[in-house]
Amino acid sequence: MDEVSDLPSDLDPSYSASDPGAFDLDADRLREECGVFGIFGHPDAAAITALGLHALQHRGQEAAGIVTFEGTRFHSERRLGLVGDHFSSASTIERLPGSVAIGHVRYSTTGETILRNVQPLFAELSSGGFAVAHNGNLTNGLTLRRDLVREGAIYQSTSDTEVILHLVARSRKPRLVQRFIEALGTIEGAYALVAISNKKLIGARDPLGIRPLVIGQLDGHYILASETCALDIIGARFVRDVENGEVVIISEKGIESLRPFPQRPMRPCIFEYIYFARPDSIVQGRSVYAVRKAMGAELARESMVDADVVVPVPDSGVPAALGFAQQSGIPFELGIIRNHYVGRTFIQPTQTVRELGVRLKHSVNRSVVEGKRIVLLDDSIVRGTTSVKIVQMMRDAGAREVHFRISSPPISYPDYYGIDTPEREKLLAATHSLEEMRAYIGSDSLAFLSVDGIYRAMGENGRDPLRPQFTDHCFTGDYPTALTDVMGEAKNQLSLLAEAS
Amino acid sequence: MDEVSDLPSDLDPSYSASDPGAFDLDADRLREECGVFGIFGHPDAAAITALGLHALQHRGQEAAGIVTFEGTRFHSERRLGLVGDHFSSASTIERLPGSVAIGHVRYSTTGETILRNVQPLFAELSSGGFAVAHNGNLTNGLTLRRDLVREGAIYQSTSDTEVILHLVARSRKPRLVQRFIEALGTIEGAYALVAISNKKLIGARDPLGIRPLVIGQLDGHYILASETCALDIIGARFVRDVENGEVVIISEKGIESLRPFPQRPMRPCIFEYIYFARPDSIVQGRSVYAVRKAMGAELARESMVDADVVVPVPDSGVPAALGFAQQSGIPFELGIIRNHYVGRTFIQPTQTVRELGVRLKHSVNRSVVEGKRIVLLDDSIVRGTTSVKIVQMMRDAGAREVHFRISSPPISYPDYYGIDTPEREKLLAATHSLEEMRAYIGSDSLAFLSVDGIYRAMGENGRDPLRPQFTDHCFTGDYPTALTDVMGEAKNQLSLLAEAS
Amino acid sequence: MDEVSDLPSDLDPSYSASDPGAFDLDADRLREECGVFGIFGHPDAAAITALGLHALQHRGQEAAGIVTFEGTRFHSERRLGLVGDHFSSASTIERLPGSVAIGHVRYSTTGETILRNVQPLFAELSSGGFAVAHNGNLTNGLTLRRDLVREGAIYQSTSDTEVILHLVARSRKPRLVQRFIEALGTIEGAYALVAISNKKLIGARDPLGIRPLVIGQLDGHYILASETCALDIIGARFVRDVENGEVVIISEKGIESLRPFPQRPMRPCIFEYIYFARPDSIVQGRSVYAVRKAMGAELARESMVDADVVVPVPDSGVPAALGFAQQSGIPFELGIIRNHYVGRTFIQPTQTVRELGVRLKHSVNRSVVEGKRIVLLDDSIVRGTTSVKIVQMMRDAGAREVHFRISSPPISYPDYYGIDTPEREKLLAATHSLEEMRAYIGSDSLAFLSVDGIYRAMGENGRDPLRPQFTDHCFTGDYPTALTDVMGEAKNQLSLLAEAS
Amino acid sequence: MDEVSDLPSDLDPSYSASDPGAFDLDADRLREECGVFGIFGHPDAAAITALGLHALQHRGQEAAGIVTFEGTRFHSERRLGLVGDHFSSASTIERLPGSVAIGHVRYSTTGETILRNVQPLFAELSSGGFAVAHNGNLTNGLTLRRDLVREGAIYQSTSDTEVILHLVARSRKPRLVQRFIEALGTIEGAYALVAISNKKLIGARDPLGIRPLVIGQLDGHYILASETCALDIIGARFVRDVENGEVVIISEKGIESLRPFPQRPMRPCIFEYIYFARPDSIVQGRSVYAVRKAMGAELARESMVDADVVVPVPDSGVPAALGFAQQSGIPFELGIIRNHYVGRTFIQPTQTVRELGVRLKHSVNRSVVEGKRIVLLDDSIVRGTTSVKIVQMMRDAGAREVHFRISSPPISYPDYYGIDTPEREKLLAATHSLEEMRAYIGSDSLAFLSVDGIYRAMGENGRDPLRPQFTDHCFTGDYPTALTDVMGEAKNQLSLLAEAS
Repeated sequence: MDEVSDLPSDLDPSYSASDPGAFDLDADRLREECGVFGIFGHPDAAAITALGLHALQHRGQEAAGIVTFEGTRFHSERRLGLVGDHFSSASTIERLPGSVAIGHVRYSTTGETILRNVQPLFAELSSGGFAVAHNGNLTNGLTLRRDLVREGAIYQSTSDTEVILHLVARSRKPRLVQRFIEALGTIEGAYALVAISNKKLIGARDPLGIRPLVIGQLDGHYILASETCALDIIGARFVRDVENGEVVIISEKGIESLRPFPQRPMRPCIFEYIYFARPDSIVQGRSVYAVRKAMGAELARESMVDADVVVPVPDSGVPAALGFAQQSGIPFELGIIRNHYVGRTFIQPTQTVRELGVRLKHSVNRSVVEGKRIVLLDDSIVRGTTSVKIVQMMRDAGAREVHFRISSPPISYPDYYGIDTPEREKLLAATHSLEEMRAYIGSDSLAFLSVDGIYRAMGENGRDPLRPQFTDHCFTGDYPTALTDVMGEAKNQLSLLAEAS
Repeated sequence: MDEVSDLPSDLDPSYSASDPGAFDLDADRLREECGVFGIFGHPDAAAITALGLHALQHRGQEAAGIVTFEGTRFHSERRLGLVGDHFSSASTIERLPGSVAIGHVRYSTTGETILRNVQPLFAELSSGGFAVAHNGNLTNGLTLRRDLVREGAIYQSTSDTEVILHLVARSRKPRLVQRFIEALGTIEGAYALVAISNKKLIGARDPLGIRPLVIGQLDGHYILASETCALDIIGARFVRDVENGEVVIISEKGIESLRPFPQRPMRPCIFEYIYFARPDSIVQGRSVYAVRKAMGAELARESMVDADVVVPVPDSGVPAALGFAQQSGIPFELGIIRNHYVGRTFIQPTQTVRELGVRLKHSVNRSVVEGKRIVLLDDSIVRGTTSVKIVQMMRDAGAREVHFRISSPPISYPDYYGIDTPEREKLLAATHSLEEMRAYIGSDSLAFLSVDGIYRAMGENGRDPLRPQFTDHCFTGDYPTALTDVMGEAKNQLSLLAEAS
Repeated sequence: MDEVSDLPSDLDPSYSASDPGAFDLDADRLREECGVFGIFGHPDAAAITALGLHALQHRGQEAAGIVTFEGTRFHSERRLGLVGDHFSSASTIERLPGSVAIGHVRYSTTGETILRNVQPLFAELSSGGFAVAHNGNLTNGLTLRRDLVREGAIYQSTSDTEVILHLVARSRKPRLVQRFIEALGTIEGAYALVAISNKKLIGARDPLGIRPLVIGQLDGHYILASETCALDIIGARFVRDVENGEVVIISEKGIESLRPFPQRPMRPCIFEYIYFARPDSIVQGRSVYAVRKAMGAELARESMVDADVVVPVPDSGVPAALGFAQQSGIPFELGIIRNHYVGRTFIQPTQTVRELGVRLKHSVNRSVVEGKRIVLLDDSIVRGTTSVKIVQMMRDAGAREVHFRISSPPISYPDYYGIDTPEREKLLAATHSLEEMRAYIGSDSLAFLSVDGIYRAMGENGRDPLRPQFTDHCFTGDYPTALTDVMGEAKNQLSLLAEAS
Repeated sequence: MDEVSDLPSDLDPSYSASDPGAFDLDADRLREECGVFGIFGHPDAAAITALGLHALQHRGQEAAGIVTFEGTRFHSERRLGLVGDHFSSASTIERLPGSVAIGHVRYSTTGETILRNVQPLFAELSSGGFAVAHNGNLTNGLTLRRDLVREGAIYQSTSDTEVILHLVARSRKPRLVQRFIEALGTIEGAYALVAISNKKLIGARDPLGIRPLVIGQLDGHYILASETCALDIIGARFVRDVENGEVVIISEKGIESLRPFPQRPMRPCIFEYIYFARPDSIVQGRSVYAVRKAMGAELARESMVDADVVVPVPDSGVPAALGFAQQSGIPFELGIIRNHYVGRTFIQPTQTVRELGVRLKHSVNRSVVEGKRIVLLDDSIVRGTTSVKIVQMMRDAGAREVHFRISSPPISYPDYYGIDTPEREKLLAATHSLEEMRAYIGSDSLAFLSVDGIYRAMGENGRDPLRPQFTDHCFTGDYPTALTDVMGEAKNQLSLLAEAS
């Protein structure tokens, strides 16, 4: 799910204010933009959807929404903030009656954090109500939006998901599923969609399967979710992944699978394994935790170093650090402690606080670091801003040597499929050589996992250059779909309305 | 502005809870549904619009909104609650830059009090942005909505005002004003509209001029407003009323008047004079305060009684009571005191409080009432529920006789032009004879002003039955336009979406 | 109830910001500082107290509190804001169980609006709990406070009411009532007190009866309240006024009256009649509404003028204006309309709004004023700031002549008994002659009611200079008690703690 | 810091509602009750104190407060909630001017979570203001309170810390430090205190040094803090621990150390090492992280088992699990994943959610657990309620064997020195044999670290039974001070006032 950008980032006053990396080691991570969940036929549909979204909260913390259908009317609750903050009370769940529900969590971008962009989006069609939630990003969304406005469509959000709603509303096909498939035939990019009408729960995944979507079952009722961890939290059984290019229709009659488009090879996004998916999820048959440990072990094989301790950058670097430590025989130690009580965070009340930066969320465990040669392990480098700070933290605590190891290849290209990446010129690896990166970060050595190395950690023999097994353009520049908006004129179209709420 | 009713009132849980009249002498009044304001070319457009809406607050207390345009983008703030609560801070006004603005206040119905229904409504058209605010009600709104949904339109609100937006968006005319006029040609009912595009401020009044709209000027900048009191608060000069069926276009080039439809005789709503308009407003050339006093004086001529004091039901009965007292020579006294500190009101915490009912907002001034023969003066009776209570209050305080006098005729028919009236069977005068009403209310005598009497108070010789000078169907059943939705199938169509916010 | 002033007004940042009179015709009134209520033995004690406080809301809008006792524990709710905002929900009332309750409303000063100053105040004594609520002001409160701190007392508030608590806590008398009376023997000034222990409801009035306190009865249960309007709202019967210097003890055994101090003549505060008390209250046997009308009539006798209309400054000037009109034969008209929807008020968002000032709350009814000779009637002048504005409003609306008439004598001396008056040099009448005042205000003529005139309106033959019947030092400088704090060193003692909440 | 318990836990309605362990693996931990911080002479005193409290947040999450002194007045901000939520904005810090500050964080008990109990507490003494913050608990607090009330003291809180304030206020000594020391001579129990007057910052630690307190220095300015992690966050230098029985006086003249009481051997609380202190703190010269690893290693030596993986209960079990894994050679794996986005947590909206219990905050990493023999490592067992759930989680995820290992001895006795422990009969180890505990918890085996083992992990040869090196009564029943309140009549005294806020 992407948005018509409202403000060029240079003009966004909040941008410079929130110096990326000032307070948070997580500030320089990539961000997934969404998670989706749906269930059909369960008496506690809304409560279960809230739990599923809670388990998917790592995919988006900006906002959450649930739409249910109870036989006559649809019911919607959409809120800025965490699922646990807004969907955990009995009164909210009671406002969402019905046995069919879909839900959505959304990542906090610096752009328009406004309620009308929170999903699921809803439309009253002549055939009845229709709600849709989307994880991914359309690469021709702006182009389609411009065309539809010319035909008289009125948009209620700046989300590209609404394009799908309008395409369905305007289709002349007689049945809703046909109208939905016609809309899918028009859009390009990455999508994992869940939708409900007054009869069905529908799931769909883009032709390459870039974004994930799984099928589960609880007490005989079908579920759709971005990750298996959303099934685990409710004790649901994993059935299978939705396949690339597949549309599944769940109704009173059971589940039906459609393949309306020409078959293409699967190419899931490799970043789900590196950072986005929860470590306890199983994505396309692989344990994310085990894959991350394998990336660390592969990195130890490629870039061993003589050192005293392996220290992970918490929390996402932990599994790879365990893999590195087990492969290398160097002890794993918690050299950085995360403060669990961050509240709404310190809003830079004074210069004093600003200068302390990252220490508010993390502190060095000096007894582990002092006088030691450290292998510092992280999963990726984006801009490099927090890497500088964490290396400095190690040195301030008396580390003798700091060897920085990254359990994925250098990120040199932006994403257009639902990952929030900065512009290319802000990606450290796009503009610096390895040695320049090391010098910028200030470590004694620096090594990334190789592209073939990450494919080996995935259980492959290496990257198949003719038919790459994963969507990996951030490392390789090999974009798997057309980029219509990026190439075309729609690129800079701004929304005409600014609204606070 | 009307809405697709969400819940049959029988099913509305809040309805029975808020016993009409339990706590408020105003609970049995008719409600106006909206007020509008617009200004073109003033550097403080948003602040002035907020003030104008504040002066129009009596026309709607549920919600308020302002949309401005600053040369590139439109800016919108829409809030539930009073103007003074949400549009009085510098930070809000700063979020509404630009020299063109329109605003809207909205009445609190028991139905969907939700943000997406708050006006002005906005759409991004291919020609640029367009925002509209509406006072009135379309009598074919539901019918048009159904037709537009069939053609693929997606609605963001349940307001009939959005119908106008979609008609404009879908028009194939080349210029915005042409598209707007085409939309006006399609709708039926009562409307006073203000709208802005990226070039113009537009005002329009329905062919009969049912709802009011005036033109003012401040420092050379044109203003549109529902009433002259919104001009007075900002020190603006009254220019003239917008005429019935007129469309005015205000732009950098000045003001332009269009008459796109066949000319019809003016027939403004008589209730503006009886209750809705503020007493200090001048409506179609008449001082509302003076008219109300004249209604009281006319009533004294028609239905004199021997008594000791004239007591108004505060606050709306005061001018008529002054007129009655001056005409009759009976002293005017404040026999009922209004408590100014009602806060958010007592939500019936206990049975104890419930039984005390109306006393929370009003109290009897026993020293005026005890042992006296009272002429109790009110402006209208709708259901009669509070009339019962107020007569009882007089008796409890020791009144010797209570003569109830109403400064308008009996209300026997519901409204469909933007006044919130109960269903016909709940109107006391629709189902009771005069004597039955008196017995129900419990007064010693009861008299209403006659229909010809109210026309005399307006300065006419009486009602012209062939060409009535005012819209007065609530008294006469003579509806001045077609009632397409009421007659047709669209009547009971409900919105499919329930949303809390 | 008074407070240790925290900030010299020159240093108070909120002071200059809220230009007195900028937005409110009421901004230049004197302010009463409190109202009290208590009930013994009623099953709905808290709900009834909430209603009583609601009826007394005009005596204090800053904060409200209720303490109840249910046989074992005391329960307290104290809130900033209106009674109806905080004490109207079933959940709040349920947190206040028990059949004995006292409550308090408090006026909003510019000083410390903080929760720990909200009454009733509570202390756990060795004999059990004790709660007290106070209307009035101690003239030796600061002196006593300083002495008690020297002995080791720790204060939780800056309220002088807490002095009474500490005096009771430290008394060596064996029984609570004895300890309370010992405390009363130590304090000087004006007080109407209600208090509860685990056995009794206690009421006390200062030796001169400066502040009012009445006894009522509801279903056999005794009530204490500042005014009779608090009895009327709950349908309670008025029994009698508490007498000056009387202590009443209400318990299971009924009511007991003590006279622990030497008898002195009654001398109630005359401002209760002029402005503070609600018009429907009966204070010491006199109808406040009738007295105010008599003041207006007396003023017409003293200072008649040839004019077209009598216009009251709403709302407190209305009864006197009716009296003036009836006496003079000049018609009474509503020349100024009050806007009922002021919300939290406009916080001066822009210069534009600031300049419009008072119009946000009141508007001129031009049809009444234009071309007329006006008698403008108000109840008092304090600083004169709003008088200037309202005369100007009349002139802007086209008044031909403006004759300003004040239904009380000039205020030349500050109060120290619970009325919030500015320092003497800010009182217009303390520093200007009558003609200077007229010139400052800008009216064509100006007249005040004479001191003897106001005594005549009260039913007296005039002021008895040897034994004045009322506390009237604001007009005469004749303070009826010692002013220990004002004369002594305690005058400028500040609280050492600043706390936001 | 302890409180007069308001409600016997059987009567506390919130108690049964929040089933301990229902949602949180941390629900069965012991709770520290407070952390303190103070700084003298620094221009950013409040901002630095806020940061110090943020680093001490693990010692108390209920509430936080800061009091500053700026030469004339004291300034106080006290709030319910996290430090980062309330003390992180520039506006709050600006309300706390001055170069001297103390602060406090407080643990969330089920009892009275009310603002008047939030520390630091303040009193205006005859010598000037005095504020105090307390970590610990007085064992004669209730007895002293009762005596002081008999003498006329009025309490503003139910905190035993206020006893100290009253003792200081009532002391007849001429100088404040003398009065403070006189108060310390009267109290019994555990305390680490920080206090400020208008001249000094004072720190004090009880005669046995039960609760920790350290001295630091930043840019030459002295600091007092509960733990060294509060020095690290601001880059301050660790100077030394305050010694047991020591009073330190920090003023313009530097630091002064007083030893007013007879010398006794140090006996710090061993639970600081097991659970309370942050792993990166150095407590009495020992790295908490290193001690915890040593406890795990010692446990591996005492209670080895043949297994496939060591899985910590996050987060507090992690260091001991690393020690166990390194000693035993069994791989350390993250078998339980913590959800970082818990928001305000799910308030049991439905039965559905209730039954899912602990999964909302933690999930099993099935790929690590399935088919494996697990050593499950936790730091302590209190009631055992969550231990049951976590063992069941392992079994549900397919664990072949679950060997539960606890890195401290069984807890058989309650604490009275500032740790929140349930009554003795609710402590699992107080009423069950080891085998009964294993059976209750459902693990295949269960072992605790021995008492001598934990002393070995601390670097001792074992516990010295004649002069135990640590306060360890929770394991041994050997209470190091008199327990006056527990033994005496004051035990069940309840506060007479219930107040919501």
